[in-house]
Amino acid sequence: MNQPIPVAVIGATGSVGQRFVSLLDQHPWFKVVALAASDRSEGKSYANACRWVLSDPMPEWARNMVLVPSTPEAIKGARIVFSALPADQAKDLEPEFAKTGFAVCSNASSYRRDSDVPLLLPEVNADHIQLVRQQRQNRGWSGCILTNPNCTSTGLTVALKALDDQFQLKKVFVVSLQALSGAGYPGVPSLDIIDNVIPNIGGEEEKVEWEPRKMLGKLGDKGVELAEARFSAHTNRVAVVDGHIVCASMEFAAPVSPEAARQALVTYQAPEIVRGLPSTPRPIIVYREESDRPQPRLDRMTGKGMTTVVGRVRSDPLFHIKFVVLSHNTIRGAAGGSIYNAELLVQEELL
Amino acid sequence: MNQPIPVAVIGATGSVGQRFVSLLDQHPWFKVVALAASDRSEGKSYANACRWVLSDPMPEWARNMVLVPSTPEAIKGARIVFSALPADQAKDLEPEFAKTGFAVCSNASSYRRDSDVPLLLPEVNADHIQLVRQQRQNRGWSGCILTNPNCTSTGLTVALKALDDQFQLKKVFVVSLQALSGAGYPGVPSLDIIDNVIPNIGGEEEKVEWEPRKMLGKLGDKGVELAEARFSAHTNRVAVVDGHIVCASMEFAAPVSPEAARQALVTYQAPEIVRGLPSTPRPIIVYREESDRPQPRLDRMTGKGMTTVVGRVRSDPLFHIKFVVLSHNTIRGAAGGSIYNAELLVQEELL
Amino acid sequence: MNQPIPVAVIGATGSVGQRFVSLLDQHPWFKVVALAASDRSEGKSYANACRWVLSDPMPEWARNMVLVPSTPEAIKGARIVFSALPADQAKDLEPEFAKTGFAVCSNASSYRRDSDVPLLLPEVNADHIQLVRQQRQNRGWSGCILTNPNCTSTGLTVALKALDDQFQLKKVFVVSLQALSGAGYPGVPSLDIIDNVIPNIGGEEEKVEWEPRKMLGKLGDKGVELAEARFSAHTNRVAVVDGHIVCASMEFAAPVSPEAARQALVTYQAPEIVRGLPSTPRPIIVYREESDRPQPRLDRMTGKGMTTVVGRVRSDPLFHIKFVVLSHNTIRGAAGGSIYNAELLVQEELL
Amino acid sequence: MNQPIPVAVIGATGSVGQRFVSLLDQHPWFKVVALAASDRSEGKSYANACRWVLSDPMPEWARNMVLVPSTPEAIKGARIVFSALPADQAKDLEPEFAKTGFAVCSNASSYRRDSDVPLLLPEVNADHIQLVRQQRQNRGWSGCILTNPNCTSTGLTVALKALDDQFQLKKVFVVSLQALSGAGYPGVPSLDIIDNVIPNIGGEEEKVEWEPRKMLGKLGDKGVELAEARFSAHTNRVAVVDGHIVCASMEFAAPVSPEAARQALVTYQAPEIVRGLPSTPRPIIVYREESDRPQPRLDRMTGKGMTTVVGRVRSDPLFHIKFVVLSHNTIRGAAGGSIYNAELLVQEELL
Repeated sequence: MNQPIPVAVIGATGSVGQRFVSLLDQHPWFKVVALAASDRSEGKSYANACRWVLSDPMPEWARNMVLVPSTPEAIKGARIVFSALPADQAKDLEPEFAKTGFAVCSNASSYRRDSDVPLLLPEVNADHIQLVRQQRQNRGWSGCILTNPNCTSTGLTVALKALDDQFQLKKVFVVSLQALSGAGYPGVPSLDIIDNVIPNIGGEEEKVEWEPRKMLGKLGDKGVELAEARFSAHTNRVAVVDGHIVCASMEFAAPVSPEAARQALVTYQAPEIVRGLPSTPRPIIVYREESDRPQPRLDRMTGKGMTTVVGRVRSDPLFHIKFVVLSHNTIRGAAGGSIYNAELLVQEELL
Repeated sequence: MNQPIPVAVIGATGSVGQRFVSLLDQHPWFKVVALAASDRSEGKSYANACRWVLSDPMPEWARNMVLVPSTPEAIKGARIVFSALPADQAKDLEPEFAKTGFAVCSNASSYRRDSDVPLLLPEVNADHIQLVRQQRQNRGWSGCILTNPNCTSTGLTVALKALDDQFQLKKVFVVSLQALSGAGYPGVPSLDIIDNVIPNIGGEEEKVEWEPRKMLGKLGDKGVELAEARFSAHTNRVAVVDGHIVCASMEFAAPVSPEAARQALVTYQAPEIVRGLPSTPRPIIVYREESDRPQPRLDRMTGKGMTTVVGRVRSDPLFHIKFVVLSHNTIRGAAGGSIYNAELLVQEELL
Repeated sequence: MNQPIPVAVIGATGSVGQRFVSLLDQHPWFKVVALAASDRSEGKSYANACRWVLSDPMPEWARNMVLVPSTPEAIKGARIVFSALPADQAKDLEPEFAKTGFAVCSNASSYRRDSDVPLLLPEVNADHIQLVRQQRQNRGWSGCILTNPNCTSTGLTVALKALDDQFQLKKVFVVSLQALSGAGYPGVPSLDIIDNVIPNIGGEEEKVEWEPRKMLGKLGDKGVELAEARFSAHTNRVAVVDGHIVCASMEFAAPVSPEAARQALVTYQAPEIVRGLPSTPRPIIVYREESDRPQPRLDRMTGKGMTTVVGRVRSDPLFHIKFVVLSHNTIRGAAGGSIYNAELLVQEELL
Repeated sequence: MNQPIPVAVIGATGSVGQRFVSLLDQHPWFKVVALAASDRSEGKSYANACRWVLSDPMPEWARNMVLVPSTPEAIKGARIVFSALPADQAKDLEPEFAKTGFAVCSNASSYRRDSDVPLLLPEVNADHIQLVRQQRQNRGWSGCILTNPNCTSTGLTVALKALDDQFQLKKVFVVSLQALSGAGYPGVPSLDIIDNVIPNIGGEEEKVEWEPRKMLGKLGDKGVELAEARFSAHTNRVAVVDGHIVCASMEFAAPVSPEAARQALVTYQAPEIVRGLPSTPRPIIVYREESDRPQPRLDRMTGKGMTTVVGRVRSDPLFHIKFVVLSHNTIRGAAGGSIYNAELLVQEELL
């Protein structure tokens, strides 16, 4: 790569937008040329407009960047658009960018279910990137939209993929204990979560019951055939800053021993094509042997926040196997995932 | 009741012991005549020996009570012993009291699985109190041991009972989000739980997978026949002071609509015999219509901490019904439960 | 009191408004006849319009009350108005009510500094209620406005009063550790306070440096002469639900021993006239002997949340005495304080 | 430096011991050759004996290191000993090492007050390292003991030094809001700190009132002459993982404007000799302009946790200046500080 690829971040001042800015700092392939935000912030410097909530400091190059509107004209030097927009805004704006030639790597749920839009975890279903060709044909776009799944499905699907490959997944019970950063900023009021749990996250259960099926599905002529496995999800918010915990019980085509399941997790390899990408998790999965891990505070930064951490694989009295999965919701589960998708797009020469 | 019944609390300085002292303050039937603790505290006043962790102040009568040893001789004025001992100590000590005529109402897990020991939630299986007769016969004791279940099974089993009565429960997936007070004091170090979740509680999953089956079982000549329903449990510790949340998915003998399930919960009545007891929950179950309830901080004190609070009854894509249950772990799930059991014993003239 | 006095709460859906509703439940003198809120909520039932954040359940009588606009016409059956409005709205609206004959008991800071408006803590400066006469004369109002101080000054001023009476207070250093409920709902975002401290609360330091001087001041012909004592304040937000901690170092006219200071605190009596009021703290001040008290979670409900709790009185190497004070910020420091003020107004036949 | 200097960590399994191991990973000058712990852990691998509480993973080289006893014989390959022992053990053990030729860099309070023991913050009082010569002469030791101050005094003293140099400090009021990691592991029980503050930390106030005076003092023939400035301290524990906040009010020889104070902080330079040391903070002090900073979660890792972060410099109504200081208590305030001291010792050829 001789020249860095120019990129823009839209929705740059929110908590996921901030993660984009932080993770794109010193990225080997990409260079941020524009930060876009809502009308309210337009024309302000990023440092002034943004209430930075990350513990890593705001990169110096970002501080004085002047926020531009979220329009194709305003970011025209860029080739890739990282979108941290909320779903309702994403629905209207992302196609504007895709139409005019930008590759939009989106965190929003708006287009995840479209049959010609890839829902990607490169270490799981890198081949689904090929949907971009259908998408361009169908829609006459010169750009495209790529999506990454909701943050709860992310680590879960990586771990399930390792098991599904070997044992054919049939049914999954999922209960999440999700971090506060998943709700953005200002997000969850402190009075709602200190000494408390909120036993529901609006719209999340439907996503967790559907998105893994697309990612574990097979790519065919008519798009992705959903995986046969079915899901039931309960989602909860807990007093954790970053890192979603998922407890899952799984049934397979036939009984699986905990030892075989652990082995499948530990030996899981990403598809060849993604192994050299800058953001590929190193390793894909870490298995913790301790009886009380993974834990969000201790394990979320494993592999720079891109690795899926699994623990407590054991027999399930009703299904076959139970385990606990952790992944970093704003890195692997949001901004880091979108960047990883963009890298795959570049690698496959689909940009 | 003309005369108050004299009672003792053993393990009185721990966090469950403190709840006993607090809940027995101004109890209409019982009067505390002795507080017992470990050798280390013996001879000290309760106020000096005890690091009080409740937000209700220590009752005045308890402050100057001198701690006695945990022996039958030392508490001989009492007729009922409330035991807040850890399981290993309970195993050795509780039979000493039962043998010499005391009715031991225990929180410990040591004897819950014994076939002649009642595992009681009076609003669920008041009739199991009759096991006391077998117990006395088998063991030649003049006293007895009654147990209450672990705090996670408590609210869950109350809610399941309402459904099982009408729809025949077959399978249950359970994931708990448990409060810190369940681990006693000092219990969980703060560095383990601030900005964190601990995805395991030692020994708890086995209890949750077994204890409800005994309580939902039928009393026969040879003790209790375990209910047919089977359980799978994941247990987690979260940063909540009091109140255990349980997410559960249930399969019944035939499909059940959310509306029918809600109806069964709302109309559930305790057995006739327990309705007038001082500690009986009023009402037994509260159903919250809001989409994000029950919550520990807001709902744990419902019915003075004795009521089981249920919410989010909805269809389950794999089984039939999902819901969320909350109960107060040191009141309904521990000290309050033991006192309620003792009231039933008195009511049934088995003291 | 033969007939209950009809009262209204304006700003009834916010967190302080909720405390008013909760504390007025079964009040021996007052009966709520109207709940007012912003236009957005008008016409809805209180249960529907209000996101209840207290752990005590919403009183039944309030659930179905229909919210009315915040205008004198809309609440005309009432005689006293409890105002939980934010300062900017209070500035415009409260005089409207006072003009038309309502006694407004306000939590807002808008009129605290007016020379003819009492800033009241009945156990400290009950005589300042007489300013109401000047206020009515000056302004030609048939009603009036009474104010209570900001929640950080509240407990601090009670404790200082006990010492000032005996030792003449000269200088006070104050650092607060304030609870989240002081910022209302939604208030402080959880991402700002989990594993964190916010070392500033906008406008609070100026209030803490001025308001105690008015309350400790002498009432004269031209209003209150500010007390001579001067203050320096740092204010901080911490991850506590309710209960403000204040660390203070004090200089007096002459050296004071810790023993003398403790004695002054423990023996402090409220003015005769307020001792029988329903909301008067019982006792006014509790002194905790333990080296690590008062603590918010354990001590905030002392005296039903109306008592000021003091601990750690000791010598100060620069001034004379240091101590720690706790008071419940939404009970003694807000809604409970306003109700107490209203009781004093009634008692003094100034309604 | 051609050869790395061999070092040992004693008290290696505790929370400060873990920080030593983490910070010594890839240190340019030092190489860990021994990890020592209590008898209980002796002979176990570090990975097995240690409950790791840091979010950075345990370095690979440490995992399999076998724990040795805390004796000079057991660590004889080392030249420097980093001590994370509690004060009572440090008192007995550290001189054993110093006597036999080891340079002991200690976190414990045991020897901080000894007139021939340097109490060091290299960016403040690097010249005090020369006390080592007196120490060796007095005690006939071939090794030595260096100490760093308690974690609350650390950042405070750095900031005060910048001001004292220019304006002559006279009086300081200090109130701390301290993190949980300062109490070690298991340390503070979670039930004591969730929704709570503990308004006292045993022994800490005395340290904060004395230690800065030694560090700001002048080195003379008879050791260090304490600085004239006097201190008053209140110390509190809050629900923060890492990072101590200190609110301070200061009086100088003459009035100082906030602008001048800010200028002094921002331009402060460490003594020439320490500027090139590997652990020297870069920069020494960061001044945050925002009205609500520094905050522990956002600012504690400034300068890899070695920088002192100051904010909110403003006029004080009683003294001259108020401000807020943050420093990372287990990095700058403990393990990182000891390593920095060791680097100074090497630089000055006093090893």
